[in-house]
Amino acid sequence: MTRFTLLLCLLLSANLPAQAATVSRVEPENWWIGMKHRQVELLVHGDGIAALSPRLSHPGVRIVDVQATENPNYLFVTVDIGEDAAPGTFDLELLDGDTVAARHPWRIDAREPAPPRGFDASDAIYLVTPDRFANGDPGNDIVAGLKEAADRANPNGRHGGDIAGLRAHLDYIAGLGFTRLWPTPLLANDQPGYSYHGYAITDLYRIDPRFGSNDDYVALAREARAHGIGLIMDVVLNHIGSEHWWMHDLPSRDWINHGGRFAPNNHRRTTIQDPHAAPGDRAGFTDGWFVESMPDLNQRNPHLARYLIQNTLWWIESAGLAGIREDTFGYADADFLSAWAKAVMDEYPDFAMVGEEWSANPAIVAHWQRGKANASGHVPHMTSMMDFPVHIALRDALLRPKVWEGDWTPLYEALANDFLYPDPDALVVFAENHDSSRLLAHLDGDIHLWKLGMAYVATTRGLPQFYYGSEVLLRGPRERNDGELRADMPGGWAGDAANAFTGEGLSAQQRDAQDFVRRLFNWRKDTPTMHVGKLRHYAPVDGVYVYFRLDGDKAVMIALNRNDEDTALRLDRFADSLGRARAGTDALTGRRVALGDTLLLPAKTPLILELDTAP
Amino acid sequence: MTRFTLLLCLLLSANLPAQAATVSRVEPENWWIGMKHRQVELLVHGDGIAALSPRLSHPGVRIVDVQATENPNYLFVTVDIGEDAAPGTFDLELLDGDTVAARHPWRIDAREPAPPRGFDASDAIYLVTPDRFANGDPGNDIVAGLKEAADRANPNGRHGGDIAGLRAHLDYIAGLGFTRLWPTPLLANDQPGYSYHGYAITDLYRIDPRFGSNDDYVALAREARAHGIGLIMDVVLNHIGSEHWWMHDLPSRDWINHGGRFAPNNHRRTTIQDPHAAPGDRAGFTDGWFVESMPDLNQRNPHLARYLIQNTLWWIESAGLAGIREDTFGYADADFLSAWAKAVMDEYPDFAMVGEEWSANPAIVAHWQRGKANASGHVPHMTSMMDFPVHIALRDALLRPKVWEGDWTPLYEALANDFLYPDPDALVVFAENHDSSRLLAHLDGDIHLWKLGMAYVATTRGLPQFYYGSEVLLRGPRERNDGELRADMPGGWAGDAANAFTGEGLSAQQRDAQDFVRRLFNWRKDTPTMHVGKLRHYAPVDGVYVYFRLDGDKAVMIALNRNDEDTALRLDRFADSLGRARAGTDALTGRRVALGDTLLLPAKTPLILELDTAP
Repeated sequence: MTRFTLLLCLLLSANLPAQAATVSRVEPENWWIGMKHRQVELLVHGDGIAALSPRLSHPGVRIVDVQATENPNYLFVTVDIGEDAAPGTFDLELLDGDTVAARHPWRIDAREPAPPRGFDASDAIYLVTPDRFANGDPGNDIVAGLKEAADRANPNGRHGGDIAGLRAHLDYIAGLGFTRLWPTPLLANDQPGYSYHGYAITDLYRIDPRFGSNDDYVALAREARAHGIGLIMDVVLNHIGSEHWWMHDLPSRDWINHGGRFAPNNHRRTTIQDPHAAPGDRAGFTDGWFVESMPDLNQRNPHLARYLIQNTLWWIESAGLAGIREDTFGYADADFLSAWAKAVMDEYPDFAMVGEEWSANPAIVAHWQRGKANASGHVPHMTSMMDFPVHIALRDALLRPKVWEGDWTPLYEALANDFLYPDPDALVVFAENHDSSRLLAHLDGDIHLWKLGMAYVATTRGLPQFYYGSEVLLRGPRERNDGELRADMPGGWAGDAANAFTGEGLSAQQRDAQDFVRRLFNWRKDTPTMHVGKLRHYAPVDGVYVYFRLDGDKAVMIALNRNDEDTALRLDRFADSLGRARAGTDALTGRRVALGDTLLLPAKTPLILELDTAP
Repeated sequence: MTRFTLLLCLLLSANLPAQAATVSRVEPENWWIGMKHRQVELLVHGDGIAALSPRLSHPGVRIVDVQATENPNYLFVTVDIGEDAAPGTFDLELLDGDTVAARHPWRIDAREPAPPRGFDASDAIYLVTPDRFANGDPGNDIVAGLKEAADRANPNGRHGGDIAGLRAHLDYIAGLGFTRLWPTPLLANDQPGYSYHGYAITDLYRIDPRFGSNDDYVALAREARAHGIGLIMDVVLNHIGSEHWWMHDLPSRDWINHGGRFAPNNHRRTTIQDPHAAPGDRAGFTDGWFVESMPDLNQRNPHLARYLIQNTLWWIESAGLAGIREDTFGYADADFLSAWAKAVMDEYPDFAMVGEEWSANPAIVAHWQRGKANASGHVPHMTSMMDFPVHIALRDALLRPKVWEGDWTPLYEALANDFLYPDPDALVVFAENHDSSRLLAHLDGDIHLWKLGMAYVATTRGLPQFYYGSEVLLRGPRERNDGELRADMPGGWAGDAANAFTGEGLSAQQRDAQDFVRRLFNWRKDTPTMHVGKLRHYAPVDGVYVYFRLDGDKAVMIALNRNDEDTALRLDRFADSLGRARAGTDALTGRRVALGDTLLLPAKTPLILELDTAP
């Protein structure tokens, strides 16, 4: 080696990295002044940047911690944002010695004044699979560079529904009486197939371009608020899509469970609470993957945990969300779930979050609700959970034979378990969702039983969740089939023969069902007794289930008659709830109803009666 | 009226009541010195005695309260027994003014030195229907003055089994490996029919003469203790028999629910915990009668509450009982149940009591166990409950198809709910009892599945309860039929063709089953790991359910294989429990078993393996 070559080598080794370094990502891309969560850990990604030192210069903002992993392409830079910091954009610089080797803009913003309000029993949620609701912008059905294009002929493909479609139909949703909108995930799912469902997220900070832009999402939230509708984001903490950019360059070896290689989940959810569970079985539940295309995140990694918490805070703050629905709750690490939910609720005390624990066992669901004193020591912070036990019991009850332990009893006994919940009034009640068969299919098309089920959901304690399209009798198969279940909303696509939004081309039965839903949920929205009234129910007798919502001098009586014939209901059993009331008004028809010794209940029909006087 | 007549009338009115008064009952008839419960409320019954004043004279004993009801024939006299009182008999006098109108002997005794020990996971319970076990004294089959005589040909009649029969076969019961004996109630049931079952009690202080005397009962307890067997009394707090002497002269109008007239029970047990339950439905559960022949006690009456508490203490102290099984728990008043159990446990801190809450819902069962923090505020004091949820799941699992949610999963998931119990190790586990069909009938005679079920009961956490006669394959009908289910134990009657006690006349299959039970429970009795070992179970896979009992350097592996063919079990999943063990000893056969990569499990057979070395 000549002296010249040596010099060249030294020059190269000293300067080349500095010249070559590029930062591919800094996440989150901004933060806000005045958050409780004021120390933000930035994930910084770029070739070989771990060898560099971060620096920034902005009043009130300073770097308080820098950590690297075994992957030289990542740095975790914790930035403290003082109360007195000024909004603005500035550079995060990465230095090689004294030389700035790379720089990336970063921003701090002033907060919007109004903190988000969550949801409570005064709300009703409209759940939508956005790809199947309305194609507001056919221009984004195919986006160059993304792996899957729209193909409406494929039940498991993308159909083109988007944020523009949701924005175009907020009037419709509000008109049905709903006050919260829960679209299944809208974040990037750049997967080769099945990408429409949204649960295989490939970029946690970006709306899928086939749904729209981040700005479109913020606009959707804003316009929804103007319609009296709060936006609920569907958050996935358990897993990502296999095409997430992390998978090409994992931040650390323990970022993904099982070292980034597929190991199937055992779905043994009882292991979390079970004091006898074998540790390996518990790990098989929390660490196993759902499917090969959904790598399972290891939230025990503190950088990942912080990333996920910040990601949630970022979306709430960015869009002014009104709530979170968290997917596959319980599959994620329990300590992390507690920390995540606590961070959100500490930041937004009036917020609301509902978790999906798909279990018929109320003790398992209750384990996760805020205020539950768990023997395990787990401290939950979720304000709400999806009420799967009541969901399962309702569908069961509607199909049961009319015997003592059949009939309405499963539902009556499911609700009796409310003593297990710290706050049953905060639970979200539903007859169907995007993962079940639709109720109408479950009931083999029996629209009378269907109305009983919908009336129950709208009138029991908690807040109801409705699945788009059932109001026009979208049915799908009886056995679960996701692609068929999540059928296109009629009228969401140009040229559709029928249109749920305008009513054109709907059958008489569809119009009747839509009218039923509209009356039911608008009445619920306008009736405070249904939001705060204490529920009192009576043991089902001979095919009739009766309960009341009682609030001071207001009372609503609900009688669900599943008999095939009109039924004369003796009223003496209900004297303590009926009080002095001798008449009421049918909430669905406006008809006046007199209360004598008996009340005639039409066959297979719900009766919702606003009583004239207080009990 | 002449002067003479007037004089006569005055004499009669002043003296006749004093001369005529008789005391028919004072209950309890004695008490003990040095009890925590030292103030005893005596129920005193006799025509017109409420107008009289009680008096007694015995050192250290004094009357501290006297109360009457609206029935002039009852007095409730509370007596305080000082620590320094001397044992002895004395009279309780009833005075009309200064005249003693009636007297009745009463007694205070010194206590036996050893306080009763309860039961715990080191025990195994043998449940017997005494009328059907052994007729030790044919002389009491027919007792003059009692309404029902023995008629062995009638499945629902009395068959003649008695306390003498139990005393004669304590050797047999101990030889099977059992350490606790639970006979269904032995108290007087002087009912016209179905009196054998014992739950329609007509005198709470007297053993039914057709079973023997109170002294015989005390002798049974004493002799059982000498055999290492503690006696468990079956206590009924909810109801009495319609021929109870109270029913001819109710102590007060509110002594019996519904004013002493039959009103059917609604059996809506969920109403107790259900925050939404209608008060009338709750009353329908606590105040309704089981059947017309079983008047429902109103334990909210404080005199009745005290009577029942004292009655339980009296039997424990009289006989040196080792435990209580309380019938139809939950049907009684909840506040009373709490007070009753607290009084017993305060008096006997090492005692044990198990309640019957016939529910598949562990949250409802757990509600009653000592240490449970209930949202309702109910403070339970029962040390144990019958494990109905596991009972139901076990019977369900053994019949389920071998699919993911079938197979052993119901049982695995039932045990997972142990997080709901303050002390799952104290629960009593059972495959059958006197109210279910026998397991063998439930399984349509499949003795292999039956052995799997029995092995489970003997090896899971808690303590097992076995029902007499199943060891010789008493089967009965598949659908519940009490009279047939509670069949006579072979050999319990002179002239029986077969004899379970001696083995004579038993079939080879019966001998095999009896031998299986004897080995299983004797091994359990002699294996401390089964009493204190922590249970760790593994999610069932392919028809095999594996769990371990782990205690320091001791470990037992249980593998329940319900497949119709021998199954090679891969052992790598169990490495954390197997530890360094490379072999073990089959608990039932003594056979040595090597542990390689796999373990061959015989078809439809339980394997219980004591491992050589610690995990």
